[in-house]
Amino acid sequence: MIRAGVVGASGLAGGDLIRLITQHPDMELTFLGGSSNIGRRPAELHANLRIDLGLTVQPVTEEVADQVDVLFLATPAPVSNRLAEQLVDKVPAIVDLSGAFRIATPERHDRWYPKVDRRADLADRFVYGVPELVRDQLKEASLISMPGCYATALTLSLAPLTLGLGLDLKTVVVDGKSGSSGGGLQLRTSDLHPFRSGAIAPYAPTGHRHAAEVGDFLERAKKGSIDSLTMSAYGVSHVRGLLTSSYVFTDEQVDQRELQRAYTRFYKGERFVRVRRNNETLIPVPDPQAVLGSNFCDVTVLKDEEGDRIVVLAALDNLIKGAAGQAVQAANIRFGLPEESGLTMQPVMPA
Amino acid sequence: MIRAGVVGASGLAGGDLIRLITQHPDMELTFLGGSSNIGRRPAELHANLRIDLGLTVQPVTEEVADQVDVLFLATPAPVSNRLAEQLVDKVPAIVDLSGAFRIATPERHDRWYPKVDRRADLADRFVYGVPELVRDQLKEASLISMPGCYATALTLSLAPLTLGLGLDLKTVVVDGKSGSSGGGLQLRTSDLHPFRSGAIAPYAPTGHRHAAEVGDFLERAKKGSIDSLTMSAYGVSHVRGLLTSSYVFTDEQVDQRELQRAYTRFYKGERFVRVRRNNETLIPVPDPQAVLGSNFCDVTVLKDEEGDRIVVLAALDNLIKGAAGQAVQAANIRFGLPEESGLTMQPVMPA
Amino acid sequence: MIRAGVVGASGLAGGDLIRLITQHPDMELTFLGGSSNIGRRPAELHANLRIDLGLTVQPVTEEVADQVDVLFLATPAPVSNRLAEQLVDKVPAIVDLSGAFRIATPERHDRWYPKVDRRADLADRFVYGVPELVRDQLKEASLISMPGCYATALTLSLAPLTLGLGLDLKTVVVDGKSGSSGGGLQLRTSDLHPFRSGAIAPYAPTGHRHAAEVGDFLERAKKGSIDSLTMSAYGVSHVRGLLTSSYVFTDEQVDQRELQRAYTRFYKGERFVRVRRNNETLIPVPDPQAVLGSNFCDVTVLKDEEGDRIVVLAALDNLIKGAAGQAVQAANIRFGLPEESGLTMQPVMPA
Amino acid sequence: MIRAGVVGASGLAGGDLIRLITQHPDMELTFLGGSSNIGRRPAELHANLRIDLGLTVQPVTEEVADQVDVLFLATPAPVSNRLAEQLVDKVPAIVDLSGAFRIATPERHDRWYPKVDRRADLADRFVYGVPELVRDQLKEASLISMPGCYATALTLSLAPLTLGLGLDLKTVVVDGKSGSSGGGLQLRTSDLHPFRSGAIAPYAPTGHRHAAEVGDFLERAKKGSIDSLTMSAYGVSHVRGLLTSSYVFTDEQVDQRELQRAYTRFYKGERFVRVRRNNETLIPVPDPQAVLGSNFCDVTVLKDEEGDRIVVLAALDNLIKGAAGQAVQAANIRFGLPEESGLTMQPVMPA
Repeated sequence: MIRAGVVGASGLAGGDLIRLITQHPDMELTFLGGSSNIGRRPAELHANLRIDLGLTVQPVTEEVADQVDVLFLATPAPVSNRLAEQLVDKVPAIVDLSGAFRIATPERHDRWYPKVDRRADLADRFVYGVPELVRDQLKEASLISMPGCYATALTLSLAPLTLGLGLDLKTVVVDGKSGSSGGGLQLRTSDLHPFRSGAIAPYAPTGHRHAAEVGDFLERAKKGSIDSLTMSAYGVSHVRGLLTSSYVFTDEQVDQRELQRAYTRFYKGERFVRVRRNNETLIPVPDPQAVLGSNFCDVTVLKDEEGDRIVVLAALDNLIKGAAGQAVQAANIRFGLPEESGLTMQPVMPA
Repeated sequence: MIRAGVVGASGLAGGDLIRLITQHPDMELTFLGGSSNIGRRPAELHANLRIDLGLTVQPVTEEVADQVDVLFLATPAPVSNRLAEQLVDKVPAIVDLSGAFRIATPERHDRWYPKVDRRADLADRFVYGVPELVRDQLKEASLISMPGCYATALTLSLAPLTLGLGLDLKTVVVDGKSGSSGGGLQLRTSDLHPFRSGAIAPYAPTGHRHAAEVGDFLERAKKGSIDSLTMSAYGVSHVRGLLTSSYVFTDEQVDQRELQRAYTRFYKGERFVRVRRNNETLIPVPDPQAVLGSNFCDVTVLKDEEGDRIVVLAALDNLIKGAAGQAVQAANIRFGLPEESGLTMQPVMPA
Repeated sequence: MIRAGVVGASGLAGGDLIRLITQHPDMELTFLGGSSNIGRRPAELHANLRIDLGLTVQPVTEEVADQVDVLFLATPAPVSNRLAEQLVDKVPAIVDLSGAFRIATPERHDRWYPKVDRRADLADRFVYGVPELVRDQLKEASLISMPGCYATALTLSLAPLTLGLGLDLKTVVVDGKSGSSGGGLQLRTSDLHPFRSGAIAPYAPTGHRHAAEVGDFLERAKKGSIDSLTMSAYGVSHVRGLLTSSYVFTDEQVDQRELQRAYTRFYKGERFVRVRRNNETLIPVPDPQAVLGSNFCDVTVLKDEEGDRIVVLAALDNLIKGAAGQAVQAANIRFGLPEESGLTMQPVMPA
Repeated sequence: MIRAGVVGASGLAGGDLIRLITQHPDMELTFLGGSSNIGRRPAELHANLRIDLGLTVQPVTEEVADQVDVLFLATPAPVSNRLAEQLVDKVPAIVDLSGAFRIATPERHDRWYPKVDRRADLADRFVYGVPELVRDQLKEASLISMPGCYATALTLSLAPLTLGLGLDLKTVVVDGKSGSSGGGLQLRTSDLHPFRSGAIAPYAPTGHRHAAEVGDFLERAKKGSIDSLTMSAYGVSHVRGLLTSSYVFTDEQVDQRELQRAYTRFYKGERFVRVRRNNETLIPVPDPQAVLGSNFCDVTVLKDEEGDRIVVLAALDNLIKGAAGQAVQAANIRFGLPEESGLTMQPVMPA
């Protein structure tokens, strides 16, 4: 039984980590950390989790090292940075869900996370944990940085083109659409229900740091290339789930059939990536509602003959495959558990 | 391994039965029945279920008796009636989710289900399967009729007052609020998204047959009584989950403390009923969002000193505790499996 | 041209007052008051109102008396109380949207608004401004207290029974369902979109002060009576609009036909009350979506033969007929304008 | 008083035409046409419109020419084509909201509307009625084809770049996001509330005919050019309103300041186009919720320094500026009425 701790227990990702770990057959929750809500039980913070674990939220000290095998950090980037410094080599595995260690290249990191002044040696040791792409590295990793929710969808969208087909992509235009849970629980007037319901909110129309993250990661790979990747992000009127649309222009010729085959082959055997045709079922897919509550990422690739471009769509539950679920998946690999352990739930639909 | 079949595989309850059974450690899905969509795979009908079970939808014949230990009927009442006649004593256990056999008293049945002309001997053999109240009968039952979604919430709301405290209730006014999935997938203009989103639709402002069902069941119990139970039902602007409000007037004196204790005691040890205080967590409960995706029914009881009345609120996921989940729970009991087998998922929230 | 001022310009009711007044053919907006956002233009506070009125938010001083004929107070009750004291007999008409002066009976007021210590002489002069019921008093009023959103729906629901038919109502059970805009713009975690979307939130399951308000008003009328009126209120998953369900028990006999006729007669000639049959159109009515954006209150009365009770349903836009629109309607009457001036917009549907 | 008729009175655009015309100070509704719901009153078809106009839905015959000055066709393209043939030169002005006459170039029309076999002479006479761009032509037009909802947003997004700045645009990638009212009222399972709520539905991921329409129109203009314009369209989880995102790549240099100035100048004096900065108010704009219920199109232009591209966002109410409202605007121009007559309503927000 792997002993797991969650820091940032009050937040949305923290809540889903608690939920998934308590349902996990091979993990037990042994620590809850945070800086607010000290002394509170999970049931007070998460209305769904009326469970008694005998745990309350505690400040994080080095003693946590005796209590956990893996520590999940669902904390803001500066906090994650500080905790990683403090606990590295004391806790067997640290899985960070923040952006603190996502971007490897130092200059790029400094540009997008100017407030996170991290130790270079620490940054170098973090594995950027998309399980489908770095499975072997994860087996040995003691420091794992989980990709952002959008970045997960994008990486899984583009990897079959660059890493799989080895294409050079000239221009990738990304349009990301997310539900409100992607923004966390900060108290902002614009996130109150009256203003967020019915919205299509262009909250990051230019320059989203998840795009930098994906570029940084895929560039370091050996095959294929991406000349330009830009992203705009929108908040739409539901709660859980996101969709990324990648509009890809390349000089190389590839048709629908080759694309479909390449994606299917690239994700063959992958438990959590479902390559789907747009019209294979009752509603057009991928659609986040068809993955809600699950660790799946649904991916669809289309050749648009009209504009000689490739359209790649990816949908995932931003709190699961985009956060808590994928973190558990990475920890499963790290500890030699079956990769799908605790993550076998099918999507809840309609919801 | 219990072999399970689902008839009505295309519908919403059918979809959730397929989902729950394929996640069930002690059941396997061995038959899919229906009258439409013959030959189709579940993945074509349910966008979330991209699974290959090697099954397609088939017409129901008597041969199904060789393929299943339990047959779930997620079919309209007349179809359930016909299938029950055809398969009784051939299939070891039939679990019917329709209203065909919910009301025991013949005159009452005829009034609310005039088109369901059922065999009296058959009707007598059906157990009205609220697991928390008739657990022992379920162990031996070969014919089980599952209560409606509203009726489940109401029965669990009122039983502690009548069966537990033995109160005589003079007037019970029920206000039921349900998401759109409660209405199924019939093609009606009023159920299209533009008209159902943002609605508070008084679709059954007087006379809901679930009220008749609850009255019929609770009256047959030995303790307590209900003089008058009326119900109005509304469709509100979400998809999954319902809340019932029971406004109870009684001449007997009982205070908040006694009520709270009575409910806690009545459901002591019950895995799927959570007795909650209205303000025990971050949001007021019960709220269907706090049980979404789970088999829980959350119940809150309040003495309203103002009007000398008792307010009982109950929330559940209408497709799980109100349909597919409770049906699996009843089947678990019937086959001697752990009652919570396949039903241990915590609610997905926020969603 | 009547010169109008709005205090509380940043809030939701304030925003709708600005919107309605700027569209009003016989009113002009000449003052914007508030305690926060001093110096800001309406367009900065209300994303829909990209208009330049040459006004910014200002603190309220006695000088406002030179600038306006009517001052609308969309402020918290204690602020309204203070402003009324300060400006009475200086500003020709004060229309208060808060609860400060809604309840006439002093003991009842003190119970529900313990923090609002109002001057008795002031309280006595306020007219409780349901235009349909006190039209003549409004013509002379210099102090007008607008009913709450729920109270408006309830008063219009019950008046035809008590004032019209002169019935003695033994028990009235009210279930109120409101969208999120009813709660204003306070920064509370439970009002963030992730928790309010998909909710059926029992936020006031017992004891709502709007019930006290309605009782206080209708009791003072000469005909009919209400022995017991209790209310529970729920937040549901849309933004604008509310529905009240009044379940009425009386010993007097009255059938559907008499009820329908009584309501139709009671509201004959009323521009803003639409008496509707539940099934007269494509969707069941009343439904707040069918009045959105308008000053209508839709009312439906039904005799429930089952339980020998009367069900009265009323739907309105809580920010218009429940707040800003009705306030303008009252001011129109006060200043001898056509009652519907500036309020002739038909509902926007679907929305 | 201009006499107006509406054909297609049962649909969503038809309903909004009825609503707007009955509120119009200079128009009166004198005819309602349709092929279904013959004999029904508007109030039976549109739950919001409890009005008695003395009109019922009638089949369209040539006699309509005596009853109307302008006939709005809110009908499917083949029906519009037939009616235009039948009534041209009999009715003074025909305003068609379908796609039948939107694309001028014959080959392009045939490709996107293969089932609409229109007369060439008729097609040539239709003015493509974006009021802001072809105001003078509209003054004389007897046949007016209204742009699609997406096409309106796109044309207003791109015209300042091509017609205003005279830029040559190399690649324009359009991502369109629309509420469910954009899809009309066809009975499709995928449009039922349970599947459309919470969705991000990629219903037209490649090849949307509105893109063809925009290209066709802007190409015929004298200044600027568009080499490639591709579009993908998504259904999101609200009802009314759409947002288009145009990602524009050009070899020409232009900075944020020039862009802002160009858009402001291009739409100077335009009543219905609001050029807005992304952060000028409480919520990021443009957002369809900030134009709901109005005839506004909100437009924002941004230089994305990151990827050397221009991002243009446009939001409108698809049933008003994208359909009924813009049609009335065009008719106002045609008949010499004030352009804003009947269209002065400010947006209803929050809703």
